[in-house]
Amino acid sequence: MRAAIFEGRLSGGFRLPGSRQLAESLGISRNSVVAVYDLLLSEGYVQARPGGGTFVAHIGRVRHGSVAKPRRSAQRSTDAEAALTGRMAPYWRTTPAVMRAQPASSYSFDFLAGCPDRECFPHDVWRRLAGRALRASSKAPALYGEIEGRAQLRDAVTKHVAFIRAIACSAQDVVVTNGAQQAFDLIARLFVEPGRTVVAVESPGYAPMRWAFEAAGAQIASVRVDEEGLVVEELPRSTRVICVSPSHQFPMGVAMSARRRAQLLDFAGHHRAVIVEDDYDGEFAGAAGPIDALKTLDDAGQVFYVGTFSKCLFPALRLGYIVAPPWALGALAAAKQRTDWHANALGQDTLAAFMLEGHLARHLRKIRALYSERRRILEAAIRRFASDRLRIVSAPGGLHVTALTTGPRRSDRAALGAAEERVRVLPISRYSADPKAPDGFVFGVGLIAANRVDTGLARLVRHLG
Amino acid sequence: MRAAIFEGRLSGGFRLPGSRQLAESLGISRNSVVAVYDLLLSEGYVQARPGGGTFVAHIGRVRHGSVAKPRRSAQRSTDAEAALTGRMAPYWRTTPAVMRAQPASSYSFDFLAGCPDRECFPHDVWRRLAGRALRASSKAPALYGEIEGRAQLRDAVTKHVAFIRAIACSAQDVVVTNGAQQAFDLIARLFVEPGRTVVAVESPGYAPMRWAFEAAGAQIASVRVDEEGLVVEELPRSTRVICVSPSHQFPMGVAMSARRRAQLLDFAGHHRAVIVEDDYDGEFAGAAGPIDALKTLDDAGQVFYVGTFSKCLFPALRLGYIVAPPWALGALAAAKQRTDWHANALGQDTLAAFMLEGHLARHLRKIRALYSERRRILEAAIRRFASDRLRIVSAPGGLHVTALTTGPRRSDRAALGAAEERVRVLPISRYSADPKAPDGFVFGVGLIAANRVDTGLARLVRHLG
Repeated sequence: MRAAIFEGRLSGGFRLPGSRQLAESLGISRNSVVAVYDLLLSEGYVQARPGGGTFVAHIGRVRHGSVAKPRRSAQRSTDAEAALTGRMAPYWRTTPAVMRAQPASSYSFDFLAGCPDRECFPHDVWRRLAGRALRASSKAPALYGEIEGRAQLRDAVTKHVAFIRAIACSAQDVVVTNGAQQAFDLIARLFVEPGRTVVAVESPGYAPMRWAFEAAGAQIASVRVDEEGLVVEELPRSTRVICVSPSHQFPMGVAMSARRRAQLLDFAGHHRAVIVEDDYDGEFAGAAGPIDALKTLDDAGQVFYVGTFSKCLFPALRLGYIVAPPWALGALAAAKQRTDWHANALGQDTLAAFMLEGHLARHLRKIRALYSERRRILEAAIRRFASDRLRIVSAPGGLHVTALTTGPRRSDRAALGAAEERVRVLPISRYSADPKAPDGFVFGVGLIAANRVDTGLARLVRHLG
Repeated sequence: MRAAIFEGRLSGGFRLPGSRQLAESLGISRNSVVAVYDLLLSEGYVQARPGGGTFVAHIGRVRHGSVAKPRRSAQRSTDAEAALTGRMAPYWRTTPAVMRAQPASSYSFDFLAGCPDRECFPHDVWRRLAGRALRASSKAPALYGEIEGRAQLRDAVTKHVAFIRAIACSAQDVVVTNGAQQAFDLIARLFVEPGRTVVAVESPGYAPMRWAFEAAGAQIASVRVDEEGLVVEELPRSTRVICVSPSHQFPMGVAMSARRRAQLLDFAGHHRAVIVEDDYDGEFAGAAGPIDALKTLDDAGQVFYVGTFSKCLFPALRLGYIVAPPWALGALAAAKQRTDWHANALGQDTLAAFMLEGHLARHLRKIRALYSERRRILEAAIRRFASDRLRIVSAPGGLHVTALTTGPRRSDRAALGAAEERVRVLPISRYSADPKAPDGFVFGVGLIAANRVDTGLARLVRHLG
């Protein structure tokens, strides 16, 4: 009846049948009819007139560009939708790319980068800690949680970053985010004035980091990476935000040299720029021991250090963090609240217990050994099967190995060919818009078992001609 | 040594002692010294010269506005921080308000609105389903999850909104978000061009919804609410986004009349505006039965329906959803990925099972009865203790009761007085910047036990003079 009134099929002023009469004609109880009439009355769809009778109200809807559902015209609806699409901010009008990875089950030899091994994860411990966290939370009132993150987790993060990168900070310098992606997004909101702010990103680099700044309206400056990391001399002088992965550049795998680090901090100091330090796999430092973070050297409060648990635990957990300079903490909290209030409490509580009880440290020892064994096998296989066609970029450990092709560009075609043989490996070109970017591959070692490395690599190499 | 080199205490060209000599002087093994030197070499902090000897590299850092840590000057650092703060986009420079509620333990009589009861929640069922979800996920590869949300949850949401609000949609129309707050935020990103887009919000209204649009740079138009809901006639013609809570206006508690609904959809159709429908407590429709959503009547694809599980389950879960028009789905997915990739998988899986196995429907029956009993007691107490000073706004059910003061404005002072007697109740003025907004209180019924309502109310009433 609501729809009929709304769409004008029951027009204003029409007298509805009496409740007894309608009940009889529909074969339902009179009480039901009375209840429906009362509801329609309370909502204003019908009116009772003094002297009796229930009448359809004059709700007087006029239609623009669309007709009632039963007579909906596809053409007019398309016009309306096009007009509405035009109301979106320019960046969103032509839907930006969405990155959707093929499921792992499509590949027998999966060198996808950025995904950790699941088999050695202590799922039973995690489940027990999650159960405990749920029991604890069932005794607390159901309120909104702490905007910057649970106190125990922020505390655990300070110990973690002190251990992996010698970063000294207190719990209040830490803001818990939904993975590194939200960290980039929050920082982008704070600093980007649409159309004005110049943000430098590495090329090749991690595209989703660039996206966060693009979506905020930044002017992106893609800056070259060489064997010492970001080529700081090539930063435009107008750069206000510099996005880098200095410890283990993604995807090239190099560590930024001390000279470049000094240049970068100098640039930031001179131009009052901020640095976003993406330390996505800081937990897997090389055998030589940890490299300090830029944040460790940051004495002017210009570095936002971003960490994530996607690589050392699992991505679907969606937990990461920012170690931020004190002057930005208030704005970050405001941005986090406006964005989504706070990260999910159960994940945070489980993770805090996992860290504070030493399970993370134990897990890291295990996966460091696992990944370094896989890297060793992979590097040996590259030397054995392809020493004339691939050159390994020397890297300080981590979850992937980067290798450059020698001779003509052929990694894109080879990756496609290998995919047909159920091998997944991404060419470096996937991480750069620059056609002159280095040619080669990024081999992730998180998903592939050690005993599959040789065969997978051999299949790829066949397509390198 | 890194720090000493970096800060210039070990200057470029300085010859380091031989490894044997240093090892002896420090009483450590020579291998350790060699390892350290190798690491510094690989990082570029030192250089080996042909002919022997290890020298500090010329990393040539210049300092601007800050000095090395040991000699850090508070004043210069403050100047640098002020300059960096000035780099933030204008909205963030003067840190926007962060809303932090006092903990519930500070109050014996807690009428805080928007927080559900935890005691009747089936925590054991939830824990069991979470454990099952964790076991299932431990068998799948650790990849990133589905951007728009887990398929099972999106499917469960379609059944849920069909049940509570007669909304017909398919799983692909649903985007899972981190609570309603992220839904507002994603929609704000899509539509707001900073400084240009006019967004209408209800006054009084839900401030965090307004914040999301303000933070995106919208021009906010606060539009009055009366006993029929948003006063559509007062919408500025330039309005492009209209934020409403038509089913149960927050905080006034009224349901939007059919006449206004028709006007609102007409306005949107005529001006090609979009409507953001916040249905935060759609699960608690009144005894008269459910009211349709605007989305139910939306035949032109202009309504974004936003639901949340914060009120019917618990806020720290951080799960909500958008039922979006088809033309906006691609952009929403792109925005969600750029923002934080996807909502946490464990919460989604647990919730999907909770819904699909009927636990949510059972829980809703229980809490609807619980809240309607508390509302009944509260309304009776208001009539008994304060019929001359408070007038109840008639409302279609829900998690709160709104009452207006009669006579002079006095709710702010009364709420402060009551807080000293451990009673928490927020005045309507907290939800509006308009000094002429209605005077009264919003009584939440989620946190207060039925047998505490009378005493809590009596204490408040004493302060109403």
